[in-house]
Amino acid sequence: MDWIDDIRWDEAGLVPAIAQEADSGDVLMMAWMNRDALQRTVELGEAVYWSRSRGRLWHKGEASGHVQKVESIRLDCDGDVLLLRVRQLGHEPGIACHTGRHSCFYRELQDQRWASVEPVLKDPESIYR
Amino acid sequence: MDWIDDIRWDEAGLVPAIAQEADSGDVLMMAWMNRDALQRTVELGEAVYWSRSRGRLWHKGEASGHVQKVESIRLDCDGDVLLLRVRQLGHEPGIACHTGRHSCFYRELQDQRWASVEPVLKDPESIYR
Repeated sequence: MDWIDDIRWDEAGLVPAIAQEADSGDVLMMAWMNRDALQRTVELGEAVYWSRSRGRLWHKGEASGHVQKVESIRLDCDGDVLLLRVRQLGHEPGIACHTGRHSCFYRELQDQRWASVEPVLKDPESIYR
Repeated sequence: MDWIDDIRWDEAGLVPAIAQEADSGDVLMMAWMNRDALQRTVELGEAVYWSRSRGRLWHKGEASGHVQKVESIRLDCDGDVLLLRVRQLGHEPGIACHTGRHSCFYRELQDQRWASVEPVLKDPESIYR
């Protein structure tokens, strides 16, 4: 497939994929994709990443139910970063982070420390039970 | 500095840094930072990345004038991705991409091809003359 060959995969066969919430514009998370993950994402219409820690495809939400419906996929000028516009679904919509927060980017640099600036919306224990 | 040691730098000493426009929420680009780049960013209040292709610090806008004023810096749950909220400045504000476009993510997957969906706001030849 030509379009997938336009992507400049890194030496490990991966590219970063940024997930941005379609409605709010909030950046929810960044994960990695390989060719298989991107093809599955396009087929399913839901985000499938490559989990580097687990060494396997990771259909986001497979354990938590917090699936990401993909509205569009963009590629940057260098061809080595993807941007997904998503709807963050689930029993409790809008929770992307495994800590039960809206966004994985919940720590902000303030006075030389990382301050937690987003609330936990759901107890992770009850997400992954 | 403790806060910088909280970051999980990769084996090359880098982390991805996503630049998001503060007002619009648009994702402008993703580049890489090492410790020096992040420290310079905090000191200057303007985005300084590590250019992997040039192998040196890259003060964004040093050639184009398209500087990014940094409003906040966030860290994700895994501690290995940064999110910068920026104001995209310059003679023509709002141009982050070296192609003269607003965002580097100007190509969208449509019918198995990457369609250009953002206009060129300024001829790159006149940006880098």
